[in-house]
Amino acid sequence: MASFQASLYCLPWLLLLFFFFIPSINSSSLTKSSISSLSSRRRIPRLTVHNNAVDPPRESGHLGSYEVFYYNQTLDHFNYQPQSYITFPQRYVMNSKYWRGGNASAPIFAYMGEEASMDSDLAAIGFLSENAAQFGALIVFIEHRFYGESVPFVSREEALTNATLRGYFNSAQALADYAEILLHIKKELSADTSPIIVIGGSYGGMLAAWFRLKYPHIALGALASSAPVLYLDGLTPQEAYFSAVTKDFREASESCYNTIKQSWAEIERVSNLENGLSILQKKFRLCKPLKEAWELRSYLETMYIVAAQYDRPPKYPVDVICKGIDSAPSSSYILDKIFLGFVAYYGKASCYSLGSSFSDETLQGWDWQVCSDIVIQMGIDRNDTMFALNPFDENLNDEFCMNKFGIIPRRHWITTYYGGQHIKEVLKKFGSNIIFSNGLRDPYSSGGILEDISDSIVAVKSNKGSHCLDIAPAREYDPEWLILQRKTEVEIISKWIIDYYEDLLEN
Amino acid sequence: MASFQASLYCLPWLLLLFFFFIPSINSSSLTKSSISSLSSRRRIPRLTVHNNAVDPPRESGHLGSYEVFYYNQTLDHFNYQPQSYITFPQRYVMNSKYWRGGNASAPIFAYMGEEASMDSDLAAIGFLSENAAQFGALIVFIEHRFYGESVPFVSREEALTNATLRGYFNSAQALADYAEILLHIKKELSADTSPIIVIGGSYGGMLAAWFRLKYPHIALGALASSAPVLYLDGLTPQEAYFSAVTKDFREASESCYNTIKQSWAEIERVSNLENGLSILQKKFRLCKPLKEAWELRSYLETMYIVAAQYDRPPKYPVDVICKGIDSAPSSSYILDKIFLGFVAYYGKASCYSLGSSFSDETLQGWDWQVCSDIVIQMGIDRNDTMFALNPFDENLNDEFCMNKFGIIPRRHWITTYYGGQHIKEVLKKFGSNIIFSNGLRDPYSSGGILEDISDSIVAVKSNKGSHCLDIAPAREYDPEWLILQRKTEVEIISKWIIDYYEDLLEN
Repeated sequence: MASFQASLYCLPWLLLLFFFFIPSINSSSLTKSSISSLSSRRRIPRLTVHNNAVDPPRESGHLGSYEVFYYNQTLDHFNYQPQSYITFPQRYVMNSKYWRGGNASAPIFAYMGEEASMDSDLAAIGFLSENAAQFGALIVFIEHRFYGESVPFVSREEALTNATLRGYFNSAQALADYAEILLHIKKELSADTSPIIVIGGSYGGMLAAWFRLKYPHIALGALASSAPVLYLDGLTPQEAYFSAVTKDFREASESCYNTIKQSWAEIERVSNLENGLSILQKKFRLCKPLKEAWELRSYLETMYIVAAQYDRPPKYPVDVICKGIDSAPSSSYILDKIFLGFVAYYGKASCYSLGSSFSDETLQGWDWQVCSDIVIQMGIDRNDTMFALNPFDENLNDEFCMNKFGIIPRRHWITTYYGGQHIKEVLKKFGSNIIFSNGLRDPYSSGGILEDISDSIVAVKSNKGSHCLDIAPAREYDPEWLILQRKTEVEIISKWIIDYYEDLLEN
Repeated sequence: MASFQASLYCLPWLLLLFFFFIPSINSSSLTKSSISSLSSRRRIPRLTVHNNAVDPPRESGHLGSYEVFYYNQTLDHFNYQPQSYITFPQRYVMNSKYWRGGNASAPIFAYMGEEASMDSDLAAIGFLSENAAQFGALIVFIEHRFYGESVPFVSREEALTNATLRGYFNSAQALADYAEILLHIKKELSADTSPIIVIGGSYGGMLAAWFRLKYPHIALGALASSAPVLYLDGLTPQEAYFSAVTKDFREASESCYNTIKQSWAEIERVSNLENGLSILQKKFRLCKPLKEAWELRSYLETMYIVAAQYDRPPKYPVDVICKGIDSAPSSSYILDKIFLGFVAYYGKASCYSLGSSFSDETLQGWDWQVCSDIVIQMGIDRNDTMFALNPFDENLNDEFCMNKFGIIPRRHWITTYYGGQHIKEVLKKFGSNIIFSNGLRDPYSSGGILEDISDSIVAVKSNKGSHCLDIAPAREYDPEWLILQRKTEVEIISKWIIDYYEDLLEN
C-alpha cells in the first residue's frame, strides 16, 4: 500500500508558518490565556506512522565523506561593544575529493544552511555532491547560527529563552557569518581566485539569493531553490499559498477537491455533538482522544499541505490522497472518504498518533525567526481555497510574539534591507548571476520569482516540480523534466564560471 | 597678502588619520604612559589666524530654505533584543522648492551625511541645490548617527564614553538609517516611483557608493565624490596618500619640494639644541612655547596636507606655499624658507597659535570610527615622499584603541562587508549606476576608483581637481575643467533617470 511521509528537508518552516495562522481564535476576544493556548496550538501534529517514506532511506556514512570544522564566529557583526567581539564556534564541513585546488582557481560550491541542523542537509541535498566532479569543485556546507551545533555558548533551549542572546539570531547576521567563513576558507586553502557558487533551498534559498546581492565580492553566483523572496511585507497575497495547494488538488481531481472543501463543516458539525470528539477519534482511528477539534483539522491540513509542497515522483502524494478519497463510492459519508485519503497517504496502521514530523529545534528556532526578522504573512481571507477561512491577524500575531519573546515582528525591515518591491525593475539593471528555481506544484512558488529578470538573473521552473526538488538527490525514477531542470541549472552555472575564467585571464 | 584656511567640509577626517600615525613613538618601547601621550598627540594643532578663508564666506540664511525633521530611528537594525527596538530622533532636512512631486515620479536627491554635524554640509555642498531645479528634484540631507543633533539619548560626550551606546555607531547601521529614512520620506510624500540619487563626499562618498550596492532597491544611483573605497584592508599602499601630496608639491616646484623634504632633519637638529624649542618658537613666531618638537612638525605637515587635499581655485594653496618658500634667495637658511611658505599660506600675524580647525565632535567621533569600523592604514614606510619616515604601526594602533575604547579595530570586516579586493572584476558584471568622482590633486584619490569599471559604474576625474571640489558650491571663478566635470556628472545622472522613466513606462 502506498504511503508517504513529508520530507523534513528543505523548508520545514513553511508548514510552521501555516499552522501559525490556522487556529481560529477571534482576536477581539483575545486574552492572555488564549494567547498561551495559541502558543501550544502552533505545534504541528506529529505523524508517527512507521511506513516507507516518500524518498528511499539515506545512504549511511554520507556524513563520513565530509571533514568537520568549527570557525570562531563573531557574535555581532554590526556592533562594536566589547561583548560583540566574543566569538562562538560555528560548524561547517568540507569535501575536497573532487576539488582541483586553489592554484587551478577551481570553484567552491557552498551550501547555506537554513533553519535546521546541518546533519539533515548532508543527506537531503544532492546538487553539490552530484555536480562537484564535473566542475572540480570543493563542497562546503555551513550551518546556520542557532541551529545544530552552532548555538552560541549555551544549550539551544537556553539560547532561545535568553532575550539578549537570541537577539543575535537573524538573517543579516547569518549572511555575515557565511561571508566570514567563506573568506576564511579561501584564505586557508590559498584559493583567492576560486569562484564561489552559493546554493540554498527555501529560506536557505532566500539567503543564497540575498548573499549574491549583498556580498557579490564573495559569491560569483547563487542557486536559490524554491525561495519565496516575495512572500514578505504584503508583496504576495496572504492566501496565495493556499490557493496553490487548492490548485494542485483540483488538478488531480475535481471530486477530491470538492470532498476536502466540504469536509471542514462536517468536522465542525460532528465536533459540536455530544461525544463528537470521541466520534472523530474513532472515525480517524486516533490512538489517543482528541482534546479539541482543531487538532484533527491541523492534522489533515498538514497532510494536504505537505503533500502539495512535496508533490514528488515517483508517487506524487497529492494523487495518492485523491485516489484514496475518490476510491469511495460517491454516496459514501464524507468523513469516510477523507479517511480513505488519509490511509492512502500514511498507510494502514492499527491507530494513528498526532505529532510533528519536524525537529523541535526547527520548530522553536523558526518561531523566533518569524517573530523577529522573517515576517511572512499568510492566511486565508478568501472563499476560493479548499480550506476554511482563516485570515491573517496582525494583532494576534503581534500579541503572540510579544507574549513569547517580548518583541513584535519588524514587519517592514526585511524588505527595507533586502528589497522586494518593484524587484523586476530594480534588478533588471542591477546585479547578476542568480537562478531562482521553482517547481510550480510547490505552493511556495506563489511567492517566488517565476520570470527572468535579466540575462543572468533568471527563473528556471518546472510545471510538475515541487519544493526544493531540483537540489534533492537524483534518483533512478526521476522524470525527464526534472533531469532537464537540473541540467539547465548546471549549464547556467557553468556559463558563469567560464565567463569568470575569461575575465580572470584578461586581467 | 594671500592667505588660506583649509575647508572644514567634506572629509576633515583624512587629516585625523594622518596625525594619528605621525607621532614617532617606537612601539617596542611602548608603555601605558606613552599611549596616553599618543592620545594627546593625536589632536591636530589649531591655527587661529583670523584671515580670509580659501572660499568666500557662506551665504547666510541658507539653512532657512530647509525644513527640519526628526525620524524615530531604530537603534540597532541588526539585533532583536528588546532594547534594540528603542528609537532615537535622527535629523534630516528637506527642500521641496524645485520638486515636481511624487505624482510626476520626480527625483529625490539625498545627501548622505558624513562624520560631522549636518549644519556644515548645507553650506559646503552645492551639487544638490544647484541641480535640483533642472531635475525638478526634492533635496534631502540626512545627518549621520552620533553627529550633530543625531546623537542617541545622551550628550555627545556621554555617548562616546558609553561602551554600550557607541557600539551602535558604525557605517552599516548608518546605511540602514538612511534606508529607513528614505523609504519613510517616499511613503510620507506618496513618492513610491520617485527615483532616489544618493550623493556623498569622502567618507560620505563611500557611504553613497556602498548604499547603491547594498540598497539598490532604494537608490537608483550614487555620486560618490572623493571616496577612497580602496584605502582599506591593505588594498592601497600605506604611503600612497603621502606620495600624492609629495607629487603635488613637486609638480608645483622642484626646489620647494626639496626644501620641505630637507627641513625635517633641520627641525630635528635644532630641537635637540639647548633652547632648541625656544629657537623654533621664535623662528615660527609662535604665540606660546613649544612643549615638544612634534607639535611644530604636525603643524607644518597639516599645512602641506590640507593645502594638497584642498588645492582649489582660485588660489591653489600648494602654489601659494611654494611661491612663499621659493621667494627666499636660494642661499637662505632652510627654516626661513619654510617660514615664508607658512606666512604665505596663513597670512601675516603678530604670532601664531597651534590648534585644530576641526570641530571636536568630528575629532572625537572619527577617533571611534577608525578604531572600530573604518580601518584605514596609513603611514610613511618609504623614503620617496617629502615627509619623514613614519610607518604604520599596527600594534601601536591596536594599543591606542584598546586603551581608549576597550576594543581593537576589526581590520578585515570593512572589506568583508563592502568588498574591495578584485573590485573591477566583481563590479564589471554586477551592479550599476555609480559615479566615482575624483580630483587627482587630492591625495585621497590614491585610494579611489580612477577607471571606469563598466558602462554605468564610471570614474569621472579631473587632473587639477581636489577633495570633493565637484560637489562644492559653484563659484564665479570656477575653471572650465571643473564646470565640465560637474556637467559630465549631471549628464550621467540624467541618463540614469531617463532610462528609469523608460522602464517605468514599459511596466
